[in-house]
Amino acid sequence: MTFLFNSDARRGAVFADAFAKELPDIPFAIDAGTVDPDTVRYLITWTVPENLARYRNLEVLFSIGAGVDQFRLEAVPGKVKIVRMVEEGIVRMMQEYVTLAVLALHRNLPAYLAQQRAGEWRDVLQLQAGSRRIGVLGLGQLGQAVLDRLKPFGFPLAGWSRSPRQIEGVTCHHGEIGLERMLMASDILICLLPLTEDTRSFLDADLFAKLPEGAALIHTGRGPQLDHAALVTALDRDRLSAAMIDVTDPEPLPADHPFWSHPKIILTPHVASVTQPVTAARAVIDNIRRHRAGVEPIGLVDRSRGY
Amino acid sequence: MTFLFNSDARRGAVFADAFAKELPDIPFAIDAGTVDPDTVRYLITWTVPENLARYRNLEVLFSIGAGVDQFRLEAVPGKVKIVRMVEEGIVRMMQEYVTLAVLALHRNLPAYLAQQRAGEWRDVLQLQAGSRRIGVLGLGQLGQAVLDRLKPFGFPLAGWSRSPRQIEGVTCHHGEIGLERMLMASDILICLLPLTEDTRSFLDADLFAKLPEGAALIHTGRGPQLDHAALVTALDRDRLSAAMIDVTDPEPLPADHPFWSHPKIILTPHVASVTQPVTAARAVIDNIRRHRAGVEPIGLVDRSRGY
Repeated sequence: MTFLFNSDARRGAVFADAFAKELPDIPFAIDAGTVDPDTVRYLITWTVPENLARYRNLEVLFSIGAGVDQFRLEAVPGKVKIVRMVEEGIVRMMQEYVTLAVLALHRNLPAYLAQQRAGEWRDVLQLQAGSRRIGVLGLGQLGQAVLDRLKPFGFPLAGWSRSPRQIEGVTCHHGEIGLERMLMASDILICLLPLTEDTRSFLDADLFAKLPEGAALIHTGRGPQLDHAALVTALDRDRLSAAMIDVTDPEPLPADHPFWSHPKIILTPHVASVTQPVTAARAVIDNIRRHRAGVEPIGLVDRSRGY
Repeated sequence: MTFLFNSDARRGAVFADAFAKELPDIPFAIDAGTVDPDTVRYLITWTVPENLARYRNLEVLFSIGAGVDQFRLEAVPGKVKIVRMVEEGIVRMMQEYVTLAVLALHRNLPAYLAQQRAGEWRDVLQLQAGSRRIGVLGLGQLGQAVLDRLKPFGFPLAGWSRSPRQIEGVTCHHGEIGLERMLMASDILICLLPLTEDTRSFLDADLFAKLPEGAALIHTGRGPQLDHAALVTALDRDRLSAAMIDVTDPEPLPADHPFWSHPKIILTPHVASVTQPVTAARAVIDNIRRHRAGVEPIGLVDRSRGY
């Protein structure tokens, strides 16, 4: 009944410590070569290994990251539970990054950075928070946590998800019509959607055209959700005013990509939120306990939705 | 018993509306030339007018801004109350700006901006919020409001003021020894002090030397509190890692000033917080009611302290 850890050694050491303390009855292995494959019940990994089939008794496959879009779901036997990483550290980092991005766009930081480069001292028209409407795409754990941090600032808050949700202090939309309604009232749009076939190229020229003139975009979902060329066009035509982008396609961006030097884009190299080993180990241990007690793990992937 | 408004006309119109509704018994004047000086009991202004003595019956002199460092206090007769602007709009904007600045420095934005300019895709070592200690200089209304916004992120919070304070969830220091203690434990230092003779050049090489190696600075006080050359030296020697600066001396900065192009400085043109006419009018009306009821106005200046 082994737990096999297939990721970087630094994180592995933290996981090994936590397992020794919390689940001493489950042997913990970092080196797949030393393990009898038949004993592996739990596997944590970033991508699905080629030789997954050899772990005949695998019960739960954990993703080391918040998404499972890097998994080939069809390569995982149906009886194996697939679990996304839902842990406090990822959530906290995403709250920080998105709050930073919202405030940066709300307070016109891209314009001030351009003015600093140009040696210009001039104030830009500043809206009050009460007139800056925020729309969040995706109302899972991350979306809700982010909205929670934005509440005290007084922004009107809205969110959109596939199925209906109710969140206090947030106007919740769902479905196709709900999407249109939210987009037309989002001065700052935040993408926190999982990457699936439905959300590939979701952020495209059509979507940008539905936003209010001069809206801004925060992209912390996955690179392939964004039509990069459409964003540049929307910014150059002043359809959108600015963007803060953490994920791209490909990553890293090629040297000649227009995002690097675009004056209206703040670009960060996929650092918004990263699995934190201490809190991640705690979350995985908690999920193994749930699984053994016959309770559904937190972050269980619905294969039909793809996340 | 006239209220004389001596500032820009756009704000004046908002004040006039509010006075007509809330204090209809007090005549409101924007043009000093049309007013019998003897009737002026209240005056709001940015600087003290040369001819202040003509308002013999003046009772309260209001500053249109959060500080009174631009007032020549000695030019104001002792019987006249001097009142700083304490209003919700200023407070909210300062909360936004400082939260933005703290998150920008915490999440290494200056480094990522430099990498973006250089076309470099590389993650920078990221501390967790629990290991990033914040120290606030000045625990008045603004300092406390800012700390309130920072609380949910989980930063260890400290503050320093001249006289002792108690704030839940904040380690409060005061006096000379308290200052040293706070500085040595501030990874991000925020200056929200009023400008007085005591705080001129407060942020100097000596102070920077007391901060932990690699600390960052947020300056939203007043320009003359900062030794600009000492900041550049501290950044260039990696004593400090980065700074977000909203106030300078002079303003605007001259074209050849090193702040414009310094890769570790984010510079904004004194826009962190600006008096908002609607909420400012409400605050002034409230203070006139307090004054008439014999209650001390909010923001009353202590001339011996200079703020």
